[in-house]
Amino acid sequence: MARAPELGSDVHRERHRAVLETAARLICEKGYEAASVQDIADACGLTKAGLYYYIRSKEDLLLEIMNYGMDVFEERVLLPVLTIADPVERLKTCMEKNIFLVTEGWSKEVTIILHEHETLTGAARAQINARKKRYVHFLESTFEEAVREGRIRRVEPRVAAFSFLGMILWIYKWFRPEGKIPSEQLVREMQDLFFGGLETVPARTKRTGKTERTSAAAKARSRNKEKAA
Amino acid sequence: MARAPELGSDVHRERHRAVLETAARLICEKGYEAASVQDIADACGLTKAGLYYYIRSKEDLLLEIMNYGMDVFEERVLLPVLTIADPVERLKTCMEKNIFLVTEGWSKEVTIILHEHETLTGAARAQINARKKRYVHFLESTFEEAVREGRIRRVEPRVAAFSFLGMILWIYKWFRPEGKIPSEQLVREMQDLFFGGLETVPARTKRTGKTERTSAAAKARSRNKEKAA
Repeated sequence: MARAPELGSDVHRERHRAVLETAARLICEKGYEAASVQDIADACGLTKAGLYYYIRSKEDLLLEIMNYGMDVFEERVLLPVLTIADPVERLKTCMEKNIFLVTEGWSKEVTIILHEHETLTGAARAQINARKKRYVHFLESTFEEAVREGRIRRVEPRVAAFSFLGMILWIYKWFRPEGKIPSEQLVREMQDLFFGGLETVPARTKRTGKTERTSAAAKARSRNKEKAA
Repeated sequence: MARAPELGSDVHRERHRAVLETAARLICEKGYEAASVQDIADACGLTKAGLYYYIRSKEDLLLEIMNYGMDVFEERVLLPVLTIADPVERLKTCMEKNIFLVTEGWSKEVTIILHEHETLTGAARAQINARKKRYVHFLESTFEEAVREGRIRRVEPRVAAFSFLGMILWIYKWFRPEGKIPSEQLVREMQDLFFGGLETVPARTKRTGKTERTSAAAKARSRNKEKAA
């Protein structure tokens, strides 16, 4: 790389991000203990001194990768859905955005490293755990709100929140971008799977003032009603 | 420990199992690389020579822990459900048994090690992967069968199978046996969550010849029908 870019400049931010992504890939391949600072510098095309322009220490680098992963998550998934008034729409959009983040947004390495926060210790570990818990709490309270408003049937919010998370966060283990299932289909299937049996009134045309896409489950139900009639 | 029990005896089997559970706990705590054979022997209350009566090598031990985890899984989850004629009942019972295995049957350590099969290499890795794939294939083909028989609405079997797995295998990350949700409730909630929106005819009294427990989702649907009538 050329001479170090100015701190706070776009180039610096971009290179910093590239360092985090490259380090994440290497730590995933070799394991955190086995990947040396020299290895990481080599992989980034930097000298060790050059690398230390972007990071403070190896431990700090790991924390930075996790904070970077959580930044991207909050920016792309959590913040855009907070303003959605209807709790079910908020959850469905959140599911959509989180699935896209796992299939397209995050590198696989960041996803894996986020799962392995046990490597961190002390305050760093507490910091990442607190950020993750904020997401769980958002999900739990949104499920509670949806039950309270009669939008979904009664569920245990904790089980609903972690089932939602388990389905989504497991995706990186099996999904192949070049496979036969496009991410858009994955989103639709998972939304129908999860909310198909939960919603008490699937198409809330009154509430939103527009026609919502009717889920496959709702279609099946209306077919059954037709048969019964 | 006393003198070595006879190979193939109940005592040998029991001690062998105890060695695998103890080794799993240690490998989880320290990491596979950091946990030495001496550490594992100490934790088991055996000399190194005594430990080698139960294991062939450290690599082999890791493979054995995974095979042990898969043995317990097949014995407690997969085999008992294979003979259930109705595909939806087969999947629901499978979900119940797998949840109980994660919350009670497997130690947390075996669960975690099963997730981390990347540590294995070559033939050992292929062996464990093949055993895991058998489960995925069982789930996919059972979802296909349920669609074909009109028991559930159309779903992508691969998405359904991995959503089912993600919900269940994520449990070890958040579930606390001493927490406020008993495993029986967890099973009911997850079955309703997953199958509530899938089943086209929730209570198949004709097929099984007995009244099935009506899911909460089905109850909600019939309430809606009553309102609509």
